[in-house]
Amino acid sequence: MTTTDSPLGLVEIVGTGLVGTSIALACRRAGIDVVLTDLSTEHVRTASGLGAGRPTAKSDRPALVVVAVPPDHLADAIAAALTDSDALVTDVGSIKSRPLHEVAQRVDAAQLSRYVGLHPMAGSERSGPLAASAALFDGRPWAITPHATSTPEATRAVAELVAICGAVPTTLSPEEHDLAVARTSHLPHLAAVLVAGRLAGAPAEHLALSGQGVRDVTRIAASDPALWQQILGANADAVGDLLGELRDQLDDLIAAVRDDEREALHRILSAGVSGTQAIPGKHGGPVRPMRSVFVSVPDHPGELARLFGDAGEIGVNIEDVHIDHDPGRPVGLTELVVEAGRAEFLLGALESRGWSTHR
Amino acid sequence: MTTTDSPLGLVEIVGTGLVGTSIALACRRAGIDVVLTDLSTEHVRTASGLGAGRPTAKSDRPALVVVAVPPDHLADAIAAALTDSDALVTDVGSIKSRPLHEVAQRVDAAQLSRYVGLHPMAGSERSGPLAASAALFDGRPWAITPHATSTPEATRAVAELVAICGAVPTTLSPEEHDLAVARTSHLPHLAAVLVAGRLAGAPAEHLALSGQGVRDVTRIAASDPALWQQILGANADAVGDLLGELRDQLDDLIAAVRDDEREALHRILSAGVSGTQAIPGKHGGPVRPMRSVFVSVPDHPGELARLFGDAGEIGVNIEDVHIDHDPGRPVGLTELVVEAGRAEFLLGALESRGWSTHR
Repeated sequence: MTTTDSPLGLVEIVGTGLVGTSIALACRRAGIDVVLTDLSTEHVRTASGLGAGRPTAKSDRPALVVVAVPPDHLADAIAAALTDSDALVTDVGSIKSRPLHEVAQRVDAAQLSRYVGLHPMAGSERSGPLAASAALFDGRPWAITPHATSTPEATRAVAELVAICGAVPTTLSPEEHDLAVARTSHLPHLAAVLVAGRLAGAPAEHLALSGQGVRDVTRIAASDPALWQQILGANADAVGDLLGELRDQLDDLIAAVRDDEREALHRILSAGVSGTQAIPGKHGGPVRPMRSVFVSVPDHPGELARLFGDAGEIGVNIEDVHIDHDPGRPVGLTELVVEAGRAEFLLGALESRGWSTHR
Repeated sequence: MTTTDSPLGLVEIVGTGLVGTSIALACRRAGIDVVLTDLSTEHVRTASGLGAGRPTAKSDRPALVVVAVPPDHLADAIAAALTDSDALVTDVGSIKSRPLHEVAQRVDAAQLSRYVGLHPMAGSERSGPLAASAALFDGRPWAITPHATSTPEATRAVAELVAICGAVPTTLSPEEHDLAVARTSHLPHLAAVLVAGRLAGAPAEHLALSGQGVRDVTRIAASDPALWQQILGANADAVGDLLGELRDQLDDLIAAVRDDEREALHRILSAGVSGTQAIPGKHGGPVRPMRSVFVSVPDHPGELARLFGDAGEIGVNIEDVHIDHDPGRPVGLTELVVEAGRAEFLLGALESRGWSTHR
């Protein structure tokens, strides 16, 4: 399908990995014509097969080029796109200052003004076009990072792309962005890596005690080391500063634990509580107090449908669901997360319909 | 209801917080008579009102006493239970060696032999009897920690309690247990606290970029500082040793980031990947590869029921579900987590039934 009235015109995606292909799928969903470029012809074939667009032809004149390549190749690919065409150019790399600086040394001022950086906060544990989805960015934060000479037209176009992907935009300078992700992404990632590193080689009967906490803390440490080594290398100053702060805090913590200084320990633990409260709600709104309602559900599929049907008729919004599916048992446990103030009402109503809840 | 043929006899719960009340509810579910003791008469009233048992009377002669009080009061409460009655005694404290050592100094050998420690790996962010549920321990790891002179009868009784709570038992000595939780619980907790501590006070536009990663890493840092200061104090040696290891690793990491030593960085990141793979599967089995299938679901409750009904008829097991409920949108996004090998089949079958999936 080719649409001539698209707000963006023809979009070229350079790099058909998880993020590039997901953006392509979101554009196609919006009826926008997309062409796909990748060093790997197999990736282009796969992305094409998923409906993400067609392989780029020599005669194509994209209006917007989206560079979605690994961090080490960002500057080359952005500079090439700016010099080879008169398209608007963006990239979705995790780091914004260093690539901008490198691009600025290779292109002229007019070319540089056609560039605005982007960074969607989604998708890192899995990779490749097969894991892509037009829904990957739905409701997720997405940074827009215009530099000092970006044209308003370029900034408007990339904001349109963010809207098409269903994400929640935040505008920051490239420098502010890199400080922000050092704190909200790179430091948490490295803490997860260090904790996970202490698990390898531990006795199996020790690891058998692993609960949900250690799983949550270490989950992102499963991400691709090759990608992360590039991300960290490109943001070394900001990350290094924060790691230094972390070490100072760790030294205080070690002293407090070793000497059983209860007040110091309480102060450090309380600062952690404050930190969790500083994270904004999922969709940018305030964090509402939630409560979990546990219901036993017989392990045939129709029963789960009946539970949701009943919850719907009762009229309580289910905010999230967790199913503890245990192959060895005839009855599974389903956790319905609802607003705290509605939990008792839902429990009573489900019980009156014959559901076995757990109080 | 009083049952005389219970395998445990009358159970007394000392401390009706989240864990104590949840164990009481699981015992009641199994038809076991339960009496409740707490310094807070309000907690006993609340737990009683939830159906967790009745307040303990002077004439009660429990066969098993379950001590579920804060870490600082464990030794006193265990010793009191052993000397005041001839019941079997257990506790559900997070630390096992230090309380055992303190109890051993206050009771005689015969009394000590009636004690076996327990530690369920569940529930720490919320607290109080109102958050309790008989399902809290379902499928979760639960440590049984007999000491050198625990009688087989006492160990059998507490193993029965773990089975009644639906948990997955692991038997360890008190010393091994404390080393295990230092690694799988206390170190992850403190890493979460340190990362969360770096968030408080950050600019709002930086925090707006918070994705799922930082939320997962810091979630457990929201737990009660007063409780954790006691847990850490009671396991200071094991925790201190691991924090020392963490600092050595952090120093290596800081050097690798500052000097852009790609190989060293890759080695540290890869050790993290290995660590995540060392954690056993949720129910003790192997970790199977999962894949997420995204489906758009119109925001009226009957639609979710219809989706689960269709998934059931298609015959693919839904392992977990996430609903991205956004109040501002007419269509919500539902993520169905299924075995990776079944994802394509489910996608095709849902599409043929008219569902809008996201590839």
